[in-house]
Amino acid sequence: MSPRGRHVFGIDVGGTNLRVAVGDETGEVVDKRHRDTHPTAGADEGIKTLAEMMEELARDHGLAMTDFGSAGVGVPGPTDPVKGMLLDPPHLPGWHHVSVAGLLEAATGVPTHLENDAHLAAYGEFHKGAGRGSRHLVFVTISTGIGGGIVIDGKLYSGAGGAAGEVGHVVIDPNGPVCSCGRRGHLEALASGTSIARIAGERIAAGERSTLSKLESITAKDLGAAAGEGDALALSVLADAGRLLGLSLGGLLNILDPEVLVLGGGVIQIGPLLLDHLYAAIQEQAFEITYSHVRIVTAGLGQDAGLVGAVEWARDHLPGGRGGTGPHA
Amino acid sequence: MSPRGRHVFGIDVGGTNLRVAVGDETGEVVDKRHRDTHPTAGADEGIKTLAEMMEELARDHGLAMTDFGSAGVGVPGPTDPVKGMLLDPPHLPGWHHVSVAGLLEAATGVPTHLENDAHLAAYGEFHKGAGRGSRHLVFVTISTGIGGGIVIDGKLYSGAGGAAGEVGHVVIDPNGPVCSCGRRGHLEALASGTSIARIAGERIAAGERSTLSKLESITAKDLGAAAGEGDALALSVLADAGRLLGLSLGGLLNILDPEVLVLGGGVIQIGPLLLDHLYAAIQEQAFEITYSHVRIVTAGLGQDAGLVGAVEWARDHLPGGRGGTGPHA
Repeated sequence: MSPRGRHVFGIDVGGTNLRVAVGDETGEVVDKRHRDTHPTAGADEGIKTLAEMMEELARDHGLAMTDFGSAGVGVPGPTDPVKGMLLDPPHLPGWHHVSVAGLLEAATGVPTHLENDAHLAAYGEFHKGAGRGSRHLVFVTISTGIGGGIVIDGKLYSGAGGAAGEVGHVVIDPNGPVCSCGRRGHLEALASGTSIARIAGERIAAGERSTLSKLESITAKDLGAAAGEGDALALSVLADAGRLLGLSLGGLLNILDPEVLVLGGGVIQIGPLLLDHLYAAIQEQAFEITYSHVRIVTAGLGQDAGLVGAVEWARDHLPGGRGGTGPHA
Repeated sequence: MSPRGRHVFGIDVGGTNLRVAVGDETGEVVDKRHRDTHPTAGADEGIKTLAEMMEELARDHGLAMTDFGSAGVGVPGPTDPVKGMLLDPPHLPGWHHVSVAGLLEAATGVPTHLENDAHLAAYGEFHKGAGRGSRHLVFVTISTGIGGGIVIDGKLYSGAGGAAGEVGHVVIDPNGPVCSCGRRGHLEALASGTSIARIAGERIAAGERSTLSKLESITAKDLGAAAGEGDALALSVLADAGRLLGLSLGGLLNILDPEVLVLGGGVIQIGPLLLDHLYAAIQEQAFEITYSHVRIVTAGLGQDAGLVGAVEWARDHLPGGRGGTGPHA
């Protein structure tokens, strides 16, 4: 086998698009592409598309596939890290129990390493985003669902079974509504984008007045817009969700005492009408010994966090290590 | 300075007694002693007593203080790990803002390293107790309060400010009672030994019948005994507490996905009448991907966990490292 080069691929498999980035020998992302896809498109087609995108990117940069020492791939669901297998991603019905890493590696010849996408977003923010310079970081993404990733001592912490970081699936109210996972009273069931939209709809159905009542279906974005125009119901729903998020994340700080808490995901784009309540509840909840040092920041890489994290994850798996000046150097 | 030997001291500063152990070159605890003390006795007296105990133990084993390469000391409260300072331990009023490590080191000449006692209990269980052979471990102690410690990748994880592991100080019910820490709805306020005794008393005062009503004051142990004799109120209080513990610890498993969860502290001695509810709620709550591999065990070292952990913590700080065959070898 000829020696492989030290370029890497970062790959992000999402519900609506596939993304590939090229990282050079220093870890810089020198190019990236995406293709739209459909969540019901099967894994076979997805793997084929990803392999094509990788070959195209290599060719366009005058590189051979052997110039790539490794690839990191993020997937939106639970993984078996030992088998490189995506288990049962709720939003990718065509990809259940697929050996994503093995199939990609077979198609491209590049050694490929699988991780959960929220873990990789945490890792991206740690290396290149809002968490740069820290050692211990917690990343929380508030989106359709609520997930997260943990970096301990400069290393991605995935847990013994690859499933760490499920910070949305903790009970915040034992009498609360049933979560997407089937359990009652989880933070995700009360404060995710899907949940706040549902709660607004339920309160309108129960007779509360709101400008949102004219919409056929409500999204978290609609809620943010209505709140911005002073809609009392929208303001109240965001205040409740922000407070519960802050109470739960404050407790998470008491458990993990990190240096940085990074908040990502589309729902935080709503801004102060949500975040002010979140920040106030964190301050109330977290012990002073932690609150006094922790940096609480919004994500710096936006949609690219997972892709950047996948590049960094690939670099961790280069033969001979990542080299360079990173924390694993 | 003459080279120091590779024996170590492990020290445990408790509310009612002071304990010192001698660890030999292999990390075995070859002797240990304790002296009763009073929580209001000041730190000056405590440090003096500890130094005496250390000198006595050394002498009785034919060792000089220079034969000891390091000492580890566990304290029941928040610490500043950089300054080696105990901050404001709730149950040790005479020891607030005391540089325990520095004062002991000045008194004995042995380099001394401070840690929170629940962290060290976790570390003791990891090295010599119920968590042997694991890489990622969470320890939870259910006692007067509820605390814990975390081992990640074979290393004690204390957090950025030394305050990680406060697993009792997370909201499990936003409308719950006020916790000892002043915040509302914490697990500790609903399921610690102190809390379950208080809840039983409140329910009796509100008119429920119980054999416990004849006691002047109720303890968690009384509750366990009454439940064992079929007292309906005691059984109900333990079922509620066990369920909330399990819901919260199941969520902790979803966050940390460890290999082992070790349950310690006096309250778990109540046994199945509490633990069956706890185990059932953990199983209900934890994701299958974690639940399928995690070992949930009761502590193996009992009261000695913190002392054994202090010995192991001291060994981590031996000049040249701990050596031997441990995970840090």
